[in-house]
Amino acid sequence: MAENSVFVGNKPVMNYVLAVLTQFNSGATEVSIKARGRAISRAVDVAEIVRKRFLPDVEVKDIQISTEQIDSEQGTVNVSAIEITLAKKE
Amino acid sequence: MAENSVFVGNKPVMNYVLAVLTQFNSGATEVSIKARGRAISRAVDVAEIVRKRFLPDVEVKDIQISTEQIDSEQGTVNVSAIEITLAKKE
Repeated sequence: MAENSVFVGNKPVMNYVLAVLTQFNSGATEVSIKARGRAISRAVDVAEIVRKRFLPDVEVKDIQISTEQIDSEQGTVNVSAIEITLAKKE
Repeated sequence: MAENSVFVGNKPVMNYVLAVLTQFNSGATEVSIKARGRAISRAVDVAEIVRKRFLPDVEVKDIQISTEQIDSEQGTVNVSAIEITLAKKE
């Protein structure tokens, strides 16, 4: 797991874009964008907006998908998750 | 682009799982799962359900994200897209 990560939830997409930009501007060379369930689409938006609109020297280094088990009132449910690692080009 | 592909839209997730299973059972060694916008989360669900519940000998070979330009009534809009390539383990 990367040291710098942003967990994407239900806020507007630009909130998370700003969080990623802040981490890169603070000296991070890698930032990991994570999301579960319906927020997965938004995580992809965040990654695309960061590298296409703001930081062209950043690339998608890795994308992992997984299944997480969440305890809810209805019992344990399986939820898909994504982790997109952005990294500065060398 | 893989020869065998399934485009994920707004139908129930099991429709797409069945489409992927059918392609593997017809002899495909690779199946590409594609989606745009909000359907991206469902595409990840499809990939996870196929390999965790039905075909343990299938793995995620590659995941690509991109931005597509769509002409709509409001003009051209940018939409994120994903392509998840599943392949039989060798």
